[in-house]
Amino acid sequence: MAKWKNLDTLDTYKALMESDHRVDLREVLAGDASGERVKKYCVPMACGLTFNYASRQVDEEVLGMLTALAEESDLEGKFRELYNGAMINTGEKRLVLHHLTRGQLGDDVIADGTDKRAFYTGVQAKVADFAAKVHAGEICNADGEKFTTVVQIGIGGSDLGPRAMYIALENWARANDKLLMEAKFISNVDPDDAVSVLKSIDVAHSLFILVSKSGTTLETLTNEAFVKNALEASGLDPSKHMVAVTSETSPLAKSSDYLAAFFMDDYIGGRYSSTSAVGGVVLSLALGSDVFDAFLAGAAEADKLAAQADPMSNAAMLDALIGVYERNVLGYECTAVLPYAQALARFPAHLQQADMESNGKSVNRFGEPVDYKTGPVLFGEPGTNGQHSFYQLLHQGKSIVPLQFIAFRENQTGTDVDIQGSTSQKKLEANVAAQIVAFACGKSDENLNKYFEGNRPSSIIVGDKLTPEVLGALLAHYENKIMFQGFLWNLNSFDQEGVQLGKVLAKKVLAHETDGALAEYSKLLDI
Amino acid sequence: MAKWKNLDTLDTYKALMESDHRVDLREVLAGDASGERVKKYCVPMACGLTFNYASRQVDEEVLGMLTALAEESDLEGKFRELYNGAMINTGEKRLVLHHLTRGQLGDDVIADGTDKRAFYTGVQAKVADFAAKVHAGEICNADGEKFTTVVQIGIGGSDLGPRAMYIALENWARANDKLLMEAKFISNVDPDDAVSVLKSIDVAHSLFILVSKSGTTLETLTNEAFVKNALEASGLDPSKHMVAVTSETSPLAKSSDYLAAFFMDDYIGGRYSSTSAVGGVVLSLALGSDVFDAFLAGAAEADKLAAQADPMSNAAMLDALIGVYERNVLGYECTAVLPYAQALARFPAHLQQADMESNGKSVNRFGEPVDYKTGPVLFGEPGTNGQHSFYQLLHQGKSIVPLQFIAFRENQTGTDVDIQGSTSQKKLEANVAAQIVAFACGKSDENLNKYFEGNRPSSIIVGDKLTPEVLGALLAHYENKIMFQGFLWNLNSFDQEGVQLGKVLAKKVLAHETDGALAEYSKLLDI
Repeated sequence: MAKWKNLDTLDTYKALMESDHRVDLREVLAGDASGERVKKYCVPMACGLTFNYASRQVDEEVLGMLTALAEESDLEGKFRELYNGAMINTGEKRLVLHHLTRGQLGDDVIADGTDKRAFYTGVQAKVADFAAKVHAGEICNADGEKFTTVVQIGIGGSDLGPRAMYIALENWARANDKLLMEAKFISNVDPDDAVSVLKSIDVAHSLFILVSKSGTTLETLTNEAFVKNALEASGLDPSKHMVAVTSETSPLAKSSDYLAAFFMDDYIGGRYSSTSAVGGVVLSLALGSDVFDAFLAGAAEADKLAAQADPMSNAAMLDALIGVYERNVLGYECTAVLPYAQALARFPAHLQQADMESNGKSVNRFGEPVDYKTGPVLFGEPGTNGQHSFYQLLHQGKSIVPLQFIAFRENQTGTDVDIQGSTSQKKLEANVAAQIVAFACGKSDENLNKYFEGNRPSSIIVGDKLTPEVLGALLAHYENKIMFQGFLWNLNSFDQEGVQLGKVLAKKVLAHETDGALAEYSKLLDI
Repeated sequence: MAKWKNLDTLDTYKALMESDHRVDLREVLAGDASGERVKKYCVPMACGLTFNYASRQVDEEVLGMLTALAEESDLEGKFRELYNGAMINTGEKRLVLHHLTRGQLGDDVIADGTDKRAFYTGVQAKVADFAAKVHAGEICNADGEKFTTVVQIGIGGSDLGPRAMYIALENWARANDKLLMEAKFISNVDPDDAVSVLKSIDVAHSLFILVSKSGTTLETLTNEAFVKNALEASGLDPSKHMVAVTSETSPLAKSSDYLAAFFMDDYIGGRYSSTSAVGGVVLSLALGSDVFDAFLAGAAEADKLAAQADPMSNAAMLDALIGVYERNVLGYECTAVLPYAQALARFPAHLQQADMESNGKSVNRFGEPVDYKTGPVLFGEPGTNGQHSFYQLLHQGKSIVPLQFIAFRENQTGTDVDIQGSTSQKKLEANVAAQIVAFACGKSDENLNKYFEGNRPSSIIVGDKLTPEVLGALLAHYENKIMFQGFLWNLNSFDQEGVQLGKVLAKKVLAHETDGALAEYSKLLDI
């Protein structure tokens, strides 16, 4: 059994905190005439991806201490317990099984009398069958016409991940004749969100997916009502245009309001549900179940690598360790994810949720306060766009933000133009290479306005092309990184009690059961 | 003449730093049974907006010190010098004239032998005339058909602001029969960005706007080539489908490659250019020049209020002062902008640019290093979406992030549904009121996992509805807030030298003039 201890009780952490050894990137990189460091500080990842950390503030000494920390913290053992079905989500007393949606890493996991791997693959088979029937026109609208559009209604974990994944693959699918249905997403309780999406589609040829584990999420039920109104206003029967993704015990599970219901369970949190039916139904309908299977295969390959004990060959673990070093030893408050791929436009928003909701905690897994910093603020936008925006602060601001670049050697569509001797894709890649070195090495200048201090850390994940497999591997890398950081900080990364208070107070406002400041804010808003 | 001095040389700042007086929101708000504080800590803004700061960590004592700081820093005098045409952008030796695009706040500004207000209104008139002709079909495609789509090609300031403004008004326009042309945007040098947009439009009925002040922006010229290829592949003459927004001296200004050229100048930085021709052409084409005029009028009204000396009636100045207090006295590293309006989905991304590019600096306006923190990291997503995502960290994480809410009493489209006794719009508003109080007051609980510490500061801007005028006022509020913070930190908020080094190195990579680490990174990326 793994020992769950606070980070600051570990000897290897104390050693890290006591060490005043620091790596100056200006010295180690600018002095690296042969490029040895860049070659050496590389870890192979799944699906041909590479994690390069040559521009993070580590060296053999720091890496040695981080490896010792991984061992003392027993990161490998904790992950093993997790995928073998231990109750890792202590707050809600639940297993944590999202890895099981994409492969069997360890023992069979039996819960509630069910083999959970069989449960997830069973749902996947049911989804694949349903999607094939929709694509074949066997499941169709009242006029016998094929559905052309799929609309996911969900919020938070039922929205950000699946949406980011769809956006990531839309152009790839179009270029490879794999875009079977266009996907849209309705999430916000702001009525203008649903109105806007409904205006942009042909409801008669649209299939809606209602995603809510409990079947009681306020935003989602409200948006369902919008959609039903729109369908009825077009003389259509909503129950012939909607499916549900929900738990077996939810009010939606056996309702005749839906063409079909696909089940999820309590062992997969919303922010980890892209590889479950929450992502599976919309991605299988939009892109085909073969594409969804490839996405799962990429994630499974990454999970396997993450199960290794040695961080020097386990990119997710190493990335996690360096992140904790940056947060707790070097004291950086934020981190940015900067994909040089327009297809990953919403990937940082998904990771913002996955990371900040998992590790934005102040108590450990036993509910005791911790005395060290935990999850950082995470933000990001695609490059090169960001270069013309917030990079100014990253280069010359008073705060240091560790950066996580992502880049590919080829673009998704295969279409490009050659201008001034290079393609757009090469220009994109040249920019990310340039940024890493600019951040790390800086530039001296007598005019301090043009002076770049440097020593600003970054790493990069590089792949050949953003395919479904690669996207799965990328997603799993970050999910596993977040998990390892939660282990290091001794947090329960799988609950989210911090979202509850607002819900309770919002109900009070709507019931007009307020006084004092809350009553006055309600008046200000004319509620 | 205003005196430009470092923040830490001001007596009033020293007094702030020496004071150990702190406001605990749990006491002042939870103890506010009559809601007096919420009523009192309100400043009227332009266009019926209200700035409420009752949940920020200030009281009469702190506000008194901040008012003294505003006076000693001569914020009003500095803004007066700016709008009267002083050379405020010291690094590039330029005037800062974006306010003049929307009104005459002070003296006539004569530069380069021109009355600049007349120059800007002249360009606006030319844009309005052109847009009217396009809408009337007088300017049309080769087949004599009307253009239905407008596509902006630009990056950074030529993209984020105009795009965020268009998204903010698209649903409003649709609901009010003001959507004259659909707008799209191409920005990234990633070829898949242009490919994706071009696939989504009918090029034969599309008008393209090339936006580049210098006429040499790499991303923009590359994307222009993409568009020209697409037009030629459809047998169309690119010069009949493109206009330019550029400076009078750029190579694009007098080129026969464009139907028309609309001029910008060096006195308006990219991130402040939404109210110039950079925003004006696309917004006038998409929504009509009357809508753009209304947007300008809202901004002008906000600018007038920002010209007042007393921060207690100047929301932009007060917001700036409290932000500096939070950054320098209370030590917070980040801030989040959280609009409870799906229409403002990209407004935080625009402000991320405007704020972080303006004030993410380490040297003062004279090029000397400063010893205090400057601009924070800014991020944000719309509510209620964010509540189901990163709010967990905001409520219970180890770092405190001051929050800037924005909300409206009515939605843009006027369409809504009533579920469980309230509309979606009321649910949206109830959530923002609830969040403010949840963050400020927290909640005790014996189970520390369900405990909310509270004392997490926020403010809110409230309006009736997000109209063009209100959007203009909102934009100008933030632009002016950023300007006042730059004055306080004694920065030049109007240059961006931090973006240069990456450009230089990217050129070296493309020319294969690299060695050491940069050469190795180039190899890794297969450049």
